Amino acid sequence: MSQKDKIAVIGAGSWGTALAMVLADNDHEVRLWGHKEKQIKEINENHTNEAYLPAITLPKNIVGYTKLDQVLEGIETIILAVPTKAIREVLQSIAEVRKEPLTIVHVSKGIEPDTSKRISEMIEEVTPTVLLKDVVVLSGPSHAEEVSLRHPTTVAVSSKNMKAAEKVQDLFINQNFRVYTNPDIVGVEIGGALKNIIALAAGISDGLGYGDNAKAALVTRGLAEITRLGVKMGASPLTFSGLAGIGDLIVTCTSTHSRNWRAGNLLGKGKNLDEVLENMGMVVEGVRTTRAAYQLAEKYDVQMPITSVLYDILFNDIDAKDGVDRLMARTKTNEMEDIADIFMAQNQD
Amino acid sequence: MSQKDKIAVIGAGSWGTALAMVLADNDHEVRLWGHKEKQIKEINENHTNEAYLPAITLPKNIVGYTKLDQVLEGIETIILAVPTKAIREVLQSIAEVRKEPLTIVHVSKGIEPDTSKRISEMIEEVTPTVLLKDVVVLSGPSHAEEVSLRHPTTVAVSSKNMKAAEKVQDLFINQNFRVYTNPDIVGVEIGGALKNIIALAAGISDGLGYGDNAKAALVTRGLAEITRLGVKMGASPLTFSGLAGIGDLIVTCTSTHSRNWRAGNLLGKGKNLDEVLENMGMVVEGVRTTRAAYQLAEKYDVQMPITSVLYDILFNDIDAKDGVDRLMARTKTNEMEDIADIFMAQNQD
Repeated sequence: MSQKDKIAVIGAGSWGTALAMVLADNDHEVRLWGHKEKQIKEINENHTNEAYLPAITLPKNIVGYTKLDQVLEGIETIILAVPTKAIREVLQSIAEVRKEPLTIVHVSKGIEPDTSKRISEMIEEVTPTVLLKDVVVLSGPSHAEEVSLRHPTTVAVSSKNMKAAEKVQDLFINQNFRVYTNPDIVGVEIGGALKNIIALAAGISDGLGYGDNAKAALVTRGLAEITRLGVKMGASPLTFSGLAGIGDLIVTCTSTHSRNWRAGNLLGKGKNLDEVLENMGMVVEGVRTTRAAYQLAEKYDVQMPITSVLYDILFNDIDAKDGVDRLMARTKTNEMEDIADIFMAQNQD
Repeated sequence: MSQKDKIAVIGAGSWGTALAMVLADNDHEVRLWGHKEKQIKEINENHTNEAYLPAITLPKNIVGYTKLDQVLEGIETIILAVPTKAIREVLQSIAEVRKEPLTIVHVSKGIEPDTSKRISEMIEEVTPTVLLKDVVVLSGPSHAEEVSLRHPTTVAVSSKNMKAAEKVQDLFINQNFRVYTNPDIVGVEIGGALKNIIALAAGISDGLGYGDNAKAALVTRGLAEITRLGVKMGASPLTFSGLAGIGDLIVTCTSTHSRNWRAGNLLGKGKNLDEVLENMGMVVEGVRTTRAAYQLAEKYDVQMPITSVLYDILFNDIDAKDGVDRLMARTKTNEMEDIADIFMAQNQD
């Protein structure tokens, strides 16, 4: 068992709380920050977080905080578990109250639209140098509910500084929660973000009633194109065959709980984007990511036919069936030439 | 549209019949052979094959035969769609009535236990040289029922002679049924066969109630180990990222209709192999394939931890939960080292 540490988890949603439980199971002193007074009171008094993890009892060594200055006192490592779009704001608030170096472990999946930045790049951009020791990403096939039930789960951690990634591995690893290191931070972040595009496409195919064969084809070809983009951005193609690639993709495409799949499913049934977003009533990360990936494909001059069709369905009101039929009618018929492009692109770099 | 041809499909089960429909949709003259008089009569008189494809009407240019000599008259290409274990016997019967060269397209998934042979190797072994023009394999994510409903489907074809594979691609390809060529016949055959092992493992995990995270981990690690074996046998690792690899795996692991998944699920719920086979009342290809893969791992000196645990659960009465827990407790913690082994093994060849 690893050395005991004090760790702050910033964000008391389902994923932040589940990760706090893993750390608490490893006997660390765990502080969980959220901005809602009532929720933090519930965590401290009842040891529950019913809105996010119903029917789960939290270990007593998780203590809730609402004040950032208090939660950060004497802390060297934070787990940043807030939605992608809140990251800049939260880090700015942290910079106001904290002046000593921190290791920031981010556990979100996304790419910032318009800037096309990965989350570790956003963190480096917004956090003062004096405050930032290391950035580590933790990603992989991991429904929070299952982690909170202590079901077997595997994730990958990565960082520019692999010593920092190994330290985080050591904090989290136990019998139920297996943590693998991976030196490819670009691939781990891109894999986790872009898999949401494929989940959208899979949902569309299901919504059209096209069946498992068509969905498997879309997922396979989709993985090939996000790998192609990732490699151009500096990732290793191997990462896309690992936990943050195929692993996360399988969880997303086999679970009808996935928001992205559900949004795609509604699109396939003939709704347009506005109707879908209204119907869902919450953020659909894959929609933002499709825009970001479309921009990245142009920037890096990479062919991404599925992303391109998705973009047209989402933002240019192309009919979903016409879009998918367009993909099926593509003339390229040697799959290896296509997949081999990925590896050749890498060797040219 | 391709030139019209006469083609015999040997085997009137669901997959043979669905493929006959694709060929018939392309206006070829299609002969469908089966040994059951009553079934062939139904095909010719009612244009249905209710036992295998309920509620489907067959095109009129599919004609049923029960006599091998008649079905082969004037034919240059046969589609061999019989169960793996019947292949040797059927080919011996064909050799008795046919003396001119044939292109044999096989569409089965498996490895012969004890001989560890791929299906194209079995065909080459049993078919007299004078009779065999080319062997082509067709494989990919393709439920027969969905093909018969003309839902979008993609498959890969491969052969030692790529001209022959391209000819087969030309026979089958249409708007609904996309055919990709792939020069890696070893990879296409191994991917299709070994994915059944992973489906068994996924079923066990689900039977134990371990959830989506654990299943995704098993599938990801499972794909890595069958890729490792395939590469040692001469396959390209890229094939395992394609339709006959990940593609087929996704269909198998996301569908609860898969026999292999169902058998695994019963094992996970505590039944032993005899009880499972009795309960299923039919062949579970993944059980035979696990034995073959275990033998291949020894022969090629490849680490296959999931296959090895499965073998112990199936044939050495190890408890399923103990087996999966053993996998989770593995100490190797750098996923890239593990995956990179695959590519290094290839470069050493």
